[in-house]
Amino acid sequence: MSFDTIRWSDKKLYLIDQTALPLEESYIEYTDHAEAARAITDMIVRGAPAIGVTAAYGLVLAANEIAASGQPFEPAFAEACELFAATRPTAVNLFWGIERMQAVADTMAGQEPQAIADRLEAEAVAIHEEDVIANKAMGRHGAALLPERCTILTHCNAGALATADYGTALGVIRAAVEAGKDVKVYADETRPFLQGARLTAWELMADKIDVTLICDNMAGALMQTGKVDAVVVGADRIAANGDVANKIGTYPLSIVAKAHGVPFYVAAPISTIDMSLGCGDLIPIEERDPSEVTGLGQNRVAPEGVKVWNPAFDVTPASNIAAIITERGVAKAPYTESIAALCGVDV
Amino acid sequence: MSFDTIRWSDKKLYLIDQTALPLEESYIEYTDHAEAARAITDMIVRGAPAIGVTAAYGLVLAANEIAASGQPFEPAFAEACELFAATRPTAVNLFWGIERMQAVADTMAGQEPQAIADRLEAEAVAIHEEDVIANKAMGRHGAALLPERCTILTHCNAGALATADYGTALGVIRAAVEAGKDVKVYADETRPFLQGARLTAWELMADKIDVTLICDNMAGALMQTGKVDAVVVGADRIAANGDVANKIGTYPLSIVAKAHGVPFYVAAPISTIDMSLGCGDLIPIEERDPSEVTGLGQNRVAPEGVKVWNPAFDVTPASNIAAIITERGVAKAPYTESIAALCGVDV
Repeated sequence: MSFDTIRWSDKKLYLIDQTALPLEESYIEYTDHAEAARAITDMIVRGAPAIGVTAAYGLVLAANEIAASGQPFEPAFAEACELFAATRPTAVNLFWGIERMQAVADTMAGQEPQAIADRLEAEAVAIHEEDVIANKAMGRHGAALLPERCTILTHCNAGALATADYGTALGVIRAAVEAGKDVKVYADETRPFLQGARLTAWELMADKIDVTLICDNMAGALMQTGKVDAVVVGADRIAANGDVANKIGTYPLSIVAKAHGVPFYVAAPISTIDMSLGCGDLIPIEERDPSEVTGLGQNRVAPEGVKVWNPAFDVTPASNIAAIITERGVAKAPYTESIAALCGVDV
Repeated sequence: MSFDTIRWSDKKLYLIDQTALPLEESYIEYTDHAEAARAITDMIVRGAPAIGVTAAYGLVLAANEIAASGQPFEPAFAEACELFAATRPTAVNLFWGIERMQAVADTMAGQEPQAIADRLEAEAVAIHEEDVIANKAMGRHGAALLPERCTILTHCNAGALATADYGTALGVIRAAVEAGKDVKVYADETRPFLQGARLTAWELMADKIDVTLICDNMAGALMQTGKVDAVVVGADRIAANGDVANKIGTYPLSIVAKAHGVPFYVAAPISTIDMSLGCGDLIPIEERDPSEVTGLGQNRVAPEGVKVWNPAFDVTPASNIAAIITERGVAKAPYTESIAALCGVDV
């Protein structure tokens, strides 16, 4: 990519400001872990894999702060882990990243704080690098599912901006293009935060991939024309039975795809799978501020004082999903078995 | 209503500026028929019945201009009819209104121009008044379909602002409330023009009807919770077989409602039915400017130069519709027979 979603350099974290895109490509430097946590809550950085990587680096900032301050390491680090865990509730990669960092800290309990911090930095860099490798593998597996010439509809941004690089759903599209397939993309704008209009359109145009923007509610008319060969989306959390929590609007899109016989694919790393949850009903769904719906930038678009319901995610049942594409391969129904097999778990 | 969508006073036309709502309630005065036509194209006034009434008054402005100018009436009036017919292609009420005015002019061919203009004024006032009466009748028929206590989801604005007054879909809701039913409403914001956020929320709040705003893509999650008892929408054109063209997003909403067993009702006056079209595939669908999707007020939300597809309407097949509510009663499947019966046509 010509941009870095997340960059770690000289013990500082840099995030591309996703709230300023596409009007401005700017980077924010983070040296304070609480500021980095706020970047997740405020969606300066978003996308399940990307916030997992950001939390890992944020915990490196915390570890270095603790080491420099001379305070006891364990309780202060546990507090930082809690701070990051409280930023957003739905994407499980966040908790996966935090737990992986906590586990490393645990194995070094009692050692010199700066030594722990240095080991945590190596772990965060590994998490970052592994995400890119996973996305490229996912891309290859997913690209094989797409016809030589196809039009793909995607929702939200599951691209380089939602991950360390390359993307999950957009990684599948990139890999198909790199494999020489003729791919056109329709991008849902994805209200209220407009990740599709602002981010997906931007990063596909940067890669010179043919992209056309539509409003979320145009997907029905688009599929009615027979133009869409497949839907490919990302995921924020996948239950053991294959139910998928993803950006609000994914669920109705899956229903509309099913009604038109259009295959609906989910691309996500293994770290998105939460084997502790038997089904999607158990996934906590974040509700965000009404102002995301009633306003856009400087414009208020709804009457003052109107009631708003603003869930950030919805749950698509496994029965609407043609395949779940991971870095370890493709899971198909029955998902309880295929997901367990990919995760190396007995069912 | 505490506002006038369309007012005719002292031979002038006044329209509430629907592009300024809900931030500002302002009225624009029209004395020139070409300006009135532009108000339809630019969506200062929108909603199928409302643009039918506006065209009728616009043709009165034209008739008075022609009478004052001394030019031959018939060709100049025919030109004005063509101008209004070219404003928007999908809502058939527009053409119905124009044809009704043209028919009146035809019966007076050769008479004194100001006499024709005066007769046309009486016809436009009749069209205006009949629309309110039709909406109230539609409201009574539709309200009878709703449970005593219910939550209704609506799309776009099919309210007083889309008609002469009272509304079609919102007329059904108003009539249910007036009949003492306990009605809660969810309003889709309706991208890209935001008629739901800007207009439906505003007019229901003005009437103290319980309304909650959602983004279009949240309807799936809302129905998944079991909270929605019925969907009620308006229509821009109904084919003889019951297929319905309505605001973009109506079709996928009907699919999602069907998947959840939620009845999907369409409320529209008989003037919305186009018996000349056998099915919805034949309805012309307007495509509007990309800037409606890429921007909102002063804010650009998508990259410069991005391709956009912006159809203003979609077509819902009759098979997804539980009933079509008109001022003459309720049509149910098989629609070819029930619609013909309401229209007094043999099939």
